[in-house]
Amino acid sequence: MAPSTSEPHTVRRSRLRAHCAGAGSDAVLVSRPANIRYLTGYAPAGSVLLLGPGEDVLVHLGEPDGGEGGLPEELRVHTLAVPGGDPAVAAASLAAAARAQALAVEEHHLTVARHRALGSAAPALRLADLGRAVEQQRLVKDDEEISCLRIAAEIADQALGELLESILVGRTERHLALELERRLVDHGAEGPAFPTSVGTGPNSGRAGHVPTDRRVEEGDFLSIGLGARYRGYRCEIGRTFVIGSVPDTWQIELYDLVFAAQRAGREALTPGAEYRDVDRAARQILTAAGYGDDLAPWTGHGVGLEIDEDPKLAPAAMGKLDACVPVTVEPGVHLPGRGGVRIDDTLVVRPAADGGPELLTITTKELLAL
Amino acid sequence: MAPSTSEPHTVRRSRLRAHCAGAGSDAVLVSRPANIRYLTGYAPAGSVLLLGPGEDVLVHLGEPDGGEGGLPEELRVHTLAVPGGDPAVAAASLAAAARAQALAVEEHHLTVARHRALGSAAPALRLADLGRAVEQQRLVKDDEEISCLRIAAEIADQALGELLESILVGRTERHLALELERRLVDHGAEGPAFPTSVGTGPNSGRAGHVPTDRRVEEGDFLSIGLGARYRGYRCEIGRTFVIGSVPDTWQIELYDLVFAAQRAGREALTPGAEYRDVDRAARQILTAAGYGDDLAPWTGHGVGLEIDEDPKLAPAAMGKLDACVPVTVEPGVHLPGRGGVRIDDTLVVRPAADGGPELLTITTKELLAL
Repeated sequence: MAPSTSEPHTVRRSRLRAHCAGAGSDAVLVSRPANIRYLTGYAPAGSVLLLGPGEDVLVHLGEPDGGEGGLPEELRVHTLAVPGGDPAVAAASLAAAARAQALAVEEHHLTVARHRALGSAAPALRLADLGRAVEQQRLVKDDEEISCLRIAAEIADQALGELLESILVGRTERHLALELERRLVDHGAEGPAFPTSVGTGPNSGRAGHVPTDRRVEEGDFLSIGLGARYRGYRCEIGRTFVIGSVPDTWQIELYDLVFAAQRAGREALTPGAEYRDVDRAARQILTAAGYGDDLAPWTGHGVGLEIDEDPKLAPAAMGKLDACVPVTVEPGVHLPGRGGVRIDDTLVVRPAADGGPELLTITTKELLAL
Repeated sequence: MAPSTSEPHTVRRSRLRAHCAGAGSDAVLVSRPANIRYLTGYAPAGSVLLLGPGEDVLVHLGEPDGGEGGLPEELRVHTLAVPGGDPAVAAASLAAAARAQALAVEEHHLTVARHRALGSAAPALRLADLGRAVEQQRLVKDDEEISCLRIAAEIADQALGELLESILVGRTERHLALELERRLVDHGAEGPAFPTSVGTGPNSGRAGHVPTDRRVEEGDFLSIGLGARYRGYRCEIGRTFVIGSVPDTWQIELYDLVFAAQRAGREALTPGAEYRDVDRAARQILTAAGYGDDLAPWTGHGVGLEIDEDPKLAPAAMGKLDACVPVTVEPGVHLPGRGGVRIDDTLVVRPAADGGPELLTITTKELLAL
């Protein structure tokens, strides 16, 4: 028999069911799409997943003509289509019919209106809060998940590398972003992991800058943030370049500073490190240089089925890194009117005995003049 | 003084405030992004809008280095940044400080967890349900909104027209979709209105088909669904073509049938028409031909700041069309294994005295053999 891709999903569902049973809920309703995908391998739009006390059931809208609502044949979970209905309400009714006592729901995802509809559909069922239990389970990635992230990072590196070999001066931020997204798909990505960001001149160095019609000019900083999605997994890379033959002194100094901050953040990634200590390692270098007031509220974040997952690497974040947690390290400085630098890698936390953090995005971080 | 783009937003907020005052709420918290944009012209990620009893305030996360969180200078509403906090909780505290008695919230958008956090932050405040009051206000578009939709449709027509002049055989669905999206941006779109759908051969005619690596072949049906976003407004067009010189008889028959259904739907668009009667006009033609079982649950929907707005043109939808409501009419038939036809237009409902429905997407609906 061929190895089944569903098996890790079955194991994940068992873990979640055990967690909830321990908290007194004999049924679980998962509504957040990335969580459903983590637990089943698939998440049709609008679907919910019901676990126990009977069979696990993926309740979906059953788009009749396929498309994104279609279900893959290899899915190893029972399914129920409720065209035109609310899958969450149908799932609550199923749980009540299976004589569940307490249904744990994702109160951080379910709306007030839907929560009320569940209560009306199954008044005998006690609704409890599942909290971020699935998000917690998703923190540490298994080998297969890390393989997907590794491939996603490789694709992003390839797309970026190809762009750098082309003529850049005179092209707009928008067109460079579109070309990068086309190259991601050329190399096998399902699509971009998030909207590709290209910032030139005064727009460089801004996190999440939305590309404009500004054209690349000689002497500009050019900063690029992109990522690929591969089998649902999303990575992130950010680099800043200089356009023209010789960077200005201020550009070299700013680049070296952000590079030093980013390296300090990367080097702080060890199992057991506090999230906030990783943030501080990078942040204090920028703060000491006088840029503390305008920094982003975080230095990095987890990646996986979503581009912005737990953990947050931020000053007030509580918790410690584990091995096999993939995170970004992405400090940046933006000087209004002048531009700035952002350097962003995706890495997997590994113990020092295994060689320390595994760098997934390997494009050079030298200051290239293009 | 130059005409202000903010004025319609001020009028819209006054209307909403009056509606809520009538329902006993002296403060309103709007959290759904498209609703915030409708009421202010802008909606930074994660922001909320608080109306009355004091000044209106857009509470946002205040990303320090601009990007998508940056606010335009022309915004005519007070703003408050709460970096790292929950803008909804901050807004509830503001409302309590302004001595509001009852705060209407969007229970269909706010999560259970946030709703509870509001209650804790402002225990003296009674939380009421705003329901879909803003969505109702958004149904009928003003001239400026319709102008934006008209331009968005023109851009989509241009992108589609250019693609049809190029060689299609041998290219993949994914690449055709990416090329269309690049052309949308070339012609001035902010981006695609929704993920561009390209289906070839057996994939043709499926609503929302996600492009694959299948290549266009001689004899295929090729169906394309795309739209442009212009100043936030989103339109939609869908066409089906045949690849090669002479369509098969089954292709001509199926095309003629879907065309007849789509025309019937378009012709049913008059002020005062029941939503479900428009759906039935198109649906009954497909049902009479034996395709009733596998049809999509709707024939069309409203468009505007979101691609899938009220109203729904569906068998059980309650309500009547008004003039100046833009909707899609998009029946389709998909035959498993063979492919199918989908024809989709964006139109604005107009009285017969004004010439009847205004067709925004004007690409021909003849069956073109490419």
